[in-house]
Amino acid sequence: MNGRKKAVILLSGGLDSSTALAVARSEDYGIYAMSFRYGQRHSVEIESARRIATAMAVEKHLFVDFDLRTIGGSALTSELEVPKQRTVDEIDGGVPVTYVPARNTIFLSFALAWAEVLGAQDIFLGVNALDYSGYPDCRPEYIEAFERMANLATRAGVEGYMRLKIHTPLIAMTKCEIIKTGLQLGVDYSLTHSCYDPGADGLACGLCDSCLLRLKGFAEAGAPDPLSYATR
Amino acid sequence: MNGRKKAVILLSGGLDSSTALAVARSEDYGIYAMSFRYGQRHSVEIESARRIATAMAVEKHLFVDFDLRTIGGSALTSELEVPKQRTVDEIDGGVPVTYVPARNTIFLSFALAWAEVLGAQDIFLGVNALDYSGYPDCRPEYIEAFERMANLATRAGVEGYMRLKIHTPLIAMTKCEIIKTGLQLGVDYSLTHSCYDPGADGLACGLCDSCLLRLKGFAEAGAPDPLSYATR
Repeated sequence: MNGRKKAVILLSGGLDSSTALAVARSEDYGIYAMSFRYGQRHSVEIESARRIATAMAVEKHLFVDFDLRTIGGSALTSELEVPKQRTVDEIDGGVPVTYVPARNTIFLSFALAWAEVLGAQDIFLGVNALDYSGYPDCRPEYIEAFERMANLATRAGVEGYMRLKIHTPLIAMTKCEIIKTGLQLGVDYSLTHSCYDPGADGLACGLCDSCLLRLKGFAEAGAPDPLSYATR
Repeated sequence: MNGRKKAVILLSGGLDSSTALAVARSEDYGIYAMSFRYGQRHSVEIESARRIATAMAVEKHLFVDFDLRTIGGSALTSELEVPKQRTVDEIDGGVPVTYVPARNTIFLSFALAWAEVLGAQDIFLGVNALDYSGYPDCRPEYIEAFERMANLATRAGVEGYMRLKIHTPLIAMTKCEIIKTGLQLGVDYSLTHSCYDPGADGLACGLCDSCLLRLKGFAEAGAPDPLSYATR
């Protein structure tokens, strides 16, 4: 690790963040993975993040705990029903109820703190502006604005000895391209998890936006999805 | 409260945030105060926030818990020694060890989430660019960059039905002006707390940057500081 560049990676254990981690690793960064227990409905996500971090041999994996349920406003942190469809074409263009208010901003803020303490100039984030389910905080203009703010926020930025860069290697990729990239880089997608509403048995529902986009991606990539689904 | 505008206020229980709260209240906002237990060394701050919120009759006071000690990098969340001086002139211009990496960015991110859920367009923050102890995330250019980012981050911003504004009513005031403003608005400064390093008895040290700036402010305002100090 001596002298090697460090990168902080936001790792949910999903398909996108796991692929972003593999991209950072392929660019020879030492990987500092950060995951969040924020009151999300299912803990499958946490377990996936742990498995991926171990499989990818990260330098350190830090969990940060807080409870967004006290703030509310999302199907992912409440008993609101997660919408189900039969095909990707039924996903409408609006911001869905699975949107968690300011989630990426909160996550990136913690990543910024850790990056400053580590002396890391690079944060990787697996957001994706194409097959992205309509979240405002996954768009390039948002990421650019966060990066600009971040460089005014820190001691490192003010004293000018560090310039923080937020990398979004997947932002312009389709889900199919993301999967092909990950397979090339050796990502074991059987360790990842994408479903917004898994069953008590941990099985992906196969019907939420996130499952549908994942299934479509694997189909287009001509690769089998190693996950089992409750409804397929 | 029906129809009244709502404001989210970051409340540390210190002199500045308590005064910012009083300013928001004087502008007839319904007040939603947000405080953080982030692993700070002393709990005096939490008690002050609670007392001020009660005295000022806020609509709601929300505590958010997380632990910045796992991230580190600050005297306020570690055993690093807090610097002590005899006079304000000895405070040097650099970023001090009491700086907590990305703290205001983390706090404002949670405030952004709560504002969106409440339908509040206004966040108040008691930062101050004059007598401010050298923190990068208290400067006007930082606040402007955060506001710009925030309006790209949320459903409210993207769908265009809400424009978030971050109010920093104290940003261009001296500590003396802040105190005069607060006294006019009826702030009970005996309930507030400023010290970075209080004793086990809860008494302010009177020697850290924050105590020195407060004492100078009261002296210049020609008002007695109602707090007791260990060393004065």
